[in-house]
Amino acid sequence: MTLYSQLADRLREHIKLGFFKSGDKLPSVRQLANEHGVSISTVQEAYRTLEMEQLVEARPKSGYFVPETSHVISMPKLSRPPQRPLDVSLWEDVLNMLLSREKEAFCQLQHAMPDMQSKTLKPLLKSLYELNKNRPHEGMVYGDVRGDYSLREQLTRLTAASGCILHPNDIVITSGCQEALSVCLKAVTKGGDIIAVESPGFYGAMQAIKAADLKALEIPTDPSNGMSIEALQLALDQWPIKAILVTPTVNNPLGYVMPEEKKKALYQLAQEYDIAIIEDDIYGDMVYEFPRPKSIKAYDEDGRVLLCSSFSKTLAPGFRVGWIAPGRYRNNVTHIKYVSSSMCPTLPQIAIANFIRQGGYDKHIRVMRKHYKEARDKMLNGIKTYFPSDTLVSYPEGGFVLWVELPERYDAVKLSEKAQEHGVHVAPGQLFSATGKYRNCLRLNYCDRTPEIRLEALKILGNILLNMNTLETKQQKKRA
Amino acid sequence: MTLYSQLADRLREHIKLGFFKSGDKLPSVRQLANEHGVSISTVQEAYRTLEMEQLVEARPKSGYFVPETSHVISMPKLSRPPQRPLDVSLWEDVLNMLLSREKEAFCQLQHAMPDMQSKTLKPLLKSLYELNKNRPHEGMVYGDVRGDYSLREQLTRLTAASGCILHPNDIVITSGCQEALSVCLKAVTKGGDIIAVESPGFYGAMQAIKAADLKALEIPTDPSNGMSIEALQLALDQWPIKAILVTPTVNNPLGYVMPEEKKKALYQLAQEYDIAIIEDDIYGDMVYEFPRPKSIKAYDEDGRVLLCSSFSKTLAPGFRVGWIAPGRYRNNVTHIKYVSSSMCPTLPQIAIANFIRQGGYDKHIRVMRKHYKEARDKMLNGIKTYFPSDTLVSYPEGGFVLWVELPERYDAVKLSEKAQEHGVHVAPGQLFSATGKYRNCLRLNYCDRTPEIRLEALKILGNILLNMNTLETKQQKKRA
Repeated sequence: MTLYSQLADRLREHIKLGFFKSGDKLPSVRQLANEHGVSISTVQEAYRTLEMEQLVEARPKSGYFVPETSHVISMPKLSRPPQRPLDVSLWEDVLNMLLSREKEAFCQLQHAMPDMQSKTLKPLLKSLYELNKNRPHEGMVYGDVRGDYSLREQLTRLTAASGCILHPNDIVITSGCQEALSVCLKAVTKGGDIIAVESPGFYGAMQAIKAADLKALEIPTDPSNGMSIEALQLALDQWPIKAILVTPTVNNPLGYVMPEEKKKALYQLAQEYDIAIIEDDIYGDMVYEFPRPKSIKAYDEDGRVLLCSSFSKTLAPGFRVGWIAPGRYRNNVTHIKYVSSSMCPTLPQIAIANFIRQGGYDKHIRVMRKHYKEARDKMLNGIKTYFPSDTLVSYPEGGFVLWVELPERYDAVKLSEKAQEHGVHVAPGQLFSATGKYRNCLRLNYCDRTPEIRLEALKILGNILLNMNTLETKQQKKRA
Repeated sequence: MTLYSQLADRLREHIKLGFFKSGDKLPSVRQLANEHGVSISTVQEAYRTLEMEQLVEARPKSGYFVPETSHVISMPKLSRPPQRPLDVSLWEDVLNMLLSREKEAFCQLQHAMPDMQSKTLKPLLKSLYELNKNRPHEGMVYGDVRGDYSLREQLTRLTAASGCILHPNDIVITSGCQEALSVCLKAVTKGGDIIAVESPGFYGAMQAIKAADLKALEIPTDPSNGMSIEALQLALDQWPIKAILVTPTVNNPLGYVMPEEKKKALYQLAQEYDIAIIEDDIYGDMVYEFPRPKSIKAYDEDGRVLLCSSFSKTLAPGFRVGWIAPGRYRNNVTHIKYVSSSMCPTLPQIAIANFIRQGGYDKHIRVMRKHYKEARDKMLNGIKTYFPSDTLVSYPEGGFVLWVELPERYDAVKLSEKAQEHGVHVAPGQLFSATGKYRNCLRLNYCDRTPEIRLEALKILGNILLNMNTLETKQQKKRA
């Protein structure tokens, strides 16, 4: 156990035992560092952990405090998926959710589509239509199978912010992150192989595992800091795992950022067992903290990390511009990308490259980070207000989705069906597992429509939950 | 053997034996029908076969004639690939060719990129630019995983012209025909399965077979009418073939249209052995004949044909808009398409749908068909003029590529390398086989730049061939 987590454990215990009460000021960072003989940064990391769990709150220039308990919602505990490789199922359910997108719905909390109303996107859109007007020929011809060079150049700049040192030829442009993940899975596996994944984990990745005839081994995952390294090691000892697929920086659906030490530990395990890491960094630039944390790829000494990302969460999914930094798998990845869809449309790539070069991208994500952080807090408040009191919720450190664990008596699939009747869409938790776990969970975005409409949607969900509960209690009484 | 091919054989023999000489008028269709007790259409089909072989020529209102021999270039014979399933190799060579695209090259005869200079494309480009300007939001959001409904509606119209009766929900939009082929291969196979393909065959399909861990069984293919049904049946008897992948209507690289009877026979074989047909119809609308021939999908009674196509050859490849009519494999195809790249960009789909609805598509392909047919004749003349006299050439009935079989003493890879030094690019024949056959062959397009530049390029190629020959003769003399 790391120093910071030992310290966090002790502080957590003290708060829970009541040594520090609601509203109390906690010891200063310096004081704790001296008391425990650890570094300032260790104490900061410990406080950061507790902050994510909403057990402490930082007040600018005043230090750390125990928040008013009325504001606290606990986080879900470490997940406990079955520890054996499984075939992924649930495609029908994923498809139903994908096809349920309706412009007319009251509130669509089911998808992970960014808010695209910001004025900061305007220069990008203008650039795109001007390219279509003035340089249509470039949009018509076959482009480079690896993607437009100007965009790959800009991507070396963007990925440098997460600690990667790449050359444009170390990058392959893809049709979104979905193609990136699928291509990488195929580049490092053969049919029947086992992939270690987070649990819960992104349904698109789960379905890609299914389509590539692979098996998913879901690793217990802590909603505050990611995949359990201990559990991963046990799994690696027991099974011939071919690759680890992780979303360590702003996880989907949980929203955590895996601490730096844990990222390093995960990389070291991959080295030790000589396997590949497919790192999904699609939300990486949407972390609320600035500068953004390093990716696992930043520690990659021997090219075993395949970094996947896209502009679908930072700019707009409709452009279908993603990328892979495939490390030592470059030749294989280029082959599979070519076979998968030949090349990607060129004009969106040029438009995005221009947008990054001219500073539009940095400006946009700065605005959106702030925007989503505020939206998160409102959403958490809404859940606190309208959902059953024993509901658990993740505490996203970036992006625009969160994970709700309802008390076990609730069925999120039923909730989802009932909610649709009221024009409210949610993503049932089971889609985020290989085989139908998390039936009492759901993922909600906090970017569709306005905060007011989202609050109203939460109220509708809360009412349905209340009725479901009453109904069940009645049925139980009847049976008794 | 069919009636028409028996008749064609007899006529061919008579011409070759000199019963009919250069410039002679041949018996009329009616006369032959009476003599042989066959239908008018059987005679027409026989003459059509001989026309493709350039053994007869039709003169409007005068009947059929033996052409001046000086105009005739013979077609390559039935191919004879190894009759066992093979792993596909040659990816490095395909990649080298893909990356060899240079704007500055003198003439790029290596790719199959349509001529996009026609004014008839203007309305499409205008529509696309206006959509980008006025409806950017639709270009930014996630669209329907199956593709835009308006385009799928228009595709039911287009495919009706090839005899298909489809509902919009029978169609899945893909990122070009390359994704369509890859998705279909995965939808009907598991790793290790065997796919029957034409030989020579499209390298993108060959590489998709490789990427899906399948084996290719190349079936002997007649450059005038396609895959040998007899050889296919023998292969089906001997090997557990999972699917047949064919490009029957304007084949790439050979350019033939498989006769209707043969298409039916191929479909019946697939029924008999209960396997799938993946039909690549990407050049189908570019056949010079009007109305266009039926696709195999038109005969599909039980949904075993997966029709793949795109607008890459008819409009422009850069839009990356293709489609699948997956028949009974719809659910699997939708799954794999979602996993492969989520959805396709929406605005190009809407623009193309509008273009079709407003008649722009039909007008454009009418113009292009005529354009390419003229270009073909000039190209064939150029080859006749500049290439060794014992060169064999396919006689494309549509599209804009042809297949050259050089005498065996020539190495097309060497030719390709030497030609590149002069700014002329060609596609070496070996890319069109699983394992490096056809080293004395090449595919040339007749759409890059102008007819004059193409003729100049052929002259350059001819000169290189002349030198290669002289050099070899010298070396042989030296050795002797």
